[in-house]
Amino acid sequence: MATLCRPAVSVPEHVITMEQTLDLARTIHADHPQLQLALRLMENTGVRKRHLLRPIEETLRHDGFEIRNQIYEAESKARVPAVIEQALKDAELRPADIDVIIYVSCTGFMMPSLTAWLINTMGFRGDTRQVPIAQLGCAAGGAAINRAHDFCTAYPEANALIVACEFCSLCYQPTDLGVGNLLSNGLFGDGVAAAVMRGRGGTGVSLERNGSYLVPETEEWIAYDVRATGFHFKLDKRVPGTMEPLAPALKELAKQHGWDASDLDFYIIHAGGPRILDDLSKYLGVPPEAFRFSRATLTEYGNIASAVVLDALRRLFDEGSTHHTARGLLAGFGPGITAEMSLGRWSVADRVPDHVPDRALVEEPTRAG
Amino acid sequence: MATLCRPAVSVPEHVITMEQTLDLARTIHADHPQLQLALRLMENTGVRKRHLLRPIEETLRHDGFEIRNQIYEAESKARVPAVIEQALKDAELRPADIDVIIYVSCTGFMMPSLTAWLINTMGFRGDTRQVPIAQLGCAAGGAAINRAHDFCTAYPEANALIVACEFCSLCYQPTDLGVGNLLSNGLFGDGVAAAVMRGRGGTGVSLERNGSYLVPETEEWIAYDVRATGFHFKLDKRVPGTMEPLAPALKELAKQHGWDASDLDFYIIHAGGPRILDDLSKYLGVPPEAFRFSRATLTEYGNIASAVVLDALRRLFDEGSTHHTARGLLAGFGPGITAEMSLGRWSVADRVPDHVPDRALVEEPTRAG
Repeated sequence: MATLCRPAVSVPEHVITMEQTLDLARTIHADHPQLQLALRLMENTGVRKRHLLRPIEETLRHDGFEIRNQIYEAESKARVPAVIEQALKDAELRPADIDVIIYVSCTGFMMPSLTAWLINTMGFRGDTRQVPIAQLGCAAGGAAINRAHDFCTAYPEANALIVACEFCSLCYQPTDLGVGNLLSNGLFGDGVAAAVMRGRGGTGVSLERNGSYLVPETEEWIAYDVRATGFHFKLDKRVPGTMEPLAPALKELAKQHGWDASDLDFYIIHAGGPRILDDLSKYLGVPPEAFRFSRATLTEYGNIASAVVLDALRRLFDEGSTHHTARGLLAGFGPGITAEMSLGRWSVADRVPDHVPDRALVEEPTRAG
Repeated sequence: MATLCRPAVSVPEHVITMEQTLDLARTIHADHPQLQLALRLMENTGVRKRHLLRPIEETLRHDGFEIRNQIYEAESKARVPAVIEQALKDAELRPADIDVIIYVSCTGFMMPSLTAWLINTMGFRGDTRQVPIAQLGCAAGGAAINRAHDFCTAYPEANALIVACEFCSLCYQPTDLGVGNLLSNGLFGDGVAAAVMRGRGGTGVSLERNGSYLVPETEEWIAYDVRATGFHFKLDKRVPGTMEPLAPALKELAKQHGWDASDLDFYIIHAGGPRILDDLSKYLGVPPEAFRFSRATLTEYGNIASAVVLDALRRLFDEGSTHHTARGLLAGFGPGITAEMSLGRWSVADRVPDHVPDRALVEEPTRAG
């Protein structure tokens, strides 16, 4: 039974409040014809503060794509290991117990991915599988959970490490002046998250089913323009309305599992923005309170891309209100428009589960070299 | 039993011979202090010709990272679908039968990845999983096979589609003048490959075990510098010698499976360069002839990155000399330095396999939305 253990999360030390963000927008974009609309959209996000890698003056400078990738590499090496150490500690495992590292990040690009450096420096085995994913954006947190679940389903004794490293402030583009860009400048934050999925044992969400869904003909709604100046984020104004076509996919997944998506014990949802949470609450018919973990992430950190679902899940752990076998839904949303969804039960280590799905031992993951 | 069916491969129409490559190097780098060494290294690759997206005059121009990514997108959309169609046809499946698309490519960057467009335009189901990998370089062909194998192990009724799209000529950097760069300019080619892995049925390589191995402390040996001008390929001169530390990992994987890596019926190896093949032949103690498929890919197409292993495998199919239950090894090598290895048996559809590993039905992959 693959159990997603407590995520560890770290946000950088430079804080910018919504008031500061709005003031900055008023100063920088004083002549922007849609400034008032942009300010209103930013305020409506409900973001109170965000945490950034660097002081705001540095964040606003564009040092070039090369420098930005160098900062990405240096900062990820400086910040990711401690988060992984905490996630391993919370899962009561050592680096040598990990069989696959799924590393998701869409805000910097390295080849080889950080996984090679992590293996070399943190004591992971040389035969640890590396699954770096850069192109699923905010959906990658959910995708990482789902691919880890697949891996533990294939190899029930295996343990997976998920890492989401997102420095959205390194994708700030001062020359992008669309309303969607101005909104994004006030919405996204930086953060690092990691979580271990244990094949056996562990306290957390025991995953039972996962699924993906691509909303037809929306591939240009969330996208990067890749230019000499780096990744330019494009956000279509139709994106906030995507819960209408996505909610049925969530309901269908629950139905296939004999569950009702409107009647679960916990919800861990990507907090892309406030409308996502409001609409999903409406379309699933669940009280807004059910999304309090996601809402708290959005309020305190902003949209930290693929790390949102892990941070929201961390808040569920910290609240401590969930009971053994409580049923829940996890979902990440991002470019595609893609939803990566999973269903699981809260499971406390050393408790005999009430529900044991049919599952046979297949084989141990190969340990080469 | 997950069976990797016949790969389909397509290379572009613009051909450059080794003679033309050498002439170009003599012209462009007439004053280069190490020209003679570079020419000798290029000749030693054994590459006779390569196929490029565009005529050589256009290839040699640097139109900027933005234009290159636009070319990448347009050319991948123009060239990938026909290759996928052929791979599906060879596997006797339709797009709707595919449960996961693993798309590997390190020579262009799109978010969302091409997978979203493929699903929208080719009739794949909306719940098809997307696994885009950009950061495993040449090892990604082997990684795609291995992750597809994991997926089919988790969901034995599932089918996976692997796509490798590599336009290495879009990473040509005229200002990079190291000997490693000059060699690379004469080594890499363009190509697209696709293959279906069927959970049930199909003729091809029935996969039994896979593994990864990272050679310690080599993460900087093959790497990209990511700059405003795009991806700059860095190749350490120690790379050709990596078969010495890697061969033991291949032997160990075979040993875990009760096989002898020196005594298999077929070998499908990433043809990074001639030394890779020569050394591996030596360290595994197998005749050079065993690597004839990989050698043919290198000779006729150059190093087409993650597509090499699929093209070499296609040549095994086309030779038609393999018998039911013949045992083989597949391996991709790339940045990290990472090896992605797998072991399997040739399996002919509708033949009862001689060897059926313990495997129980787990569950059908979820089909949402």
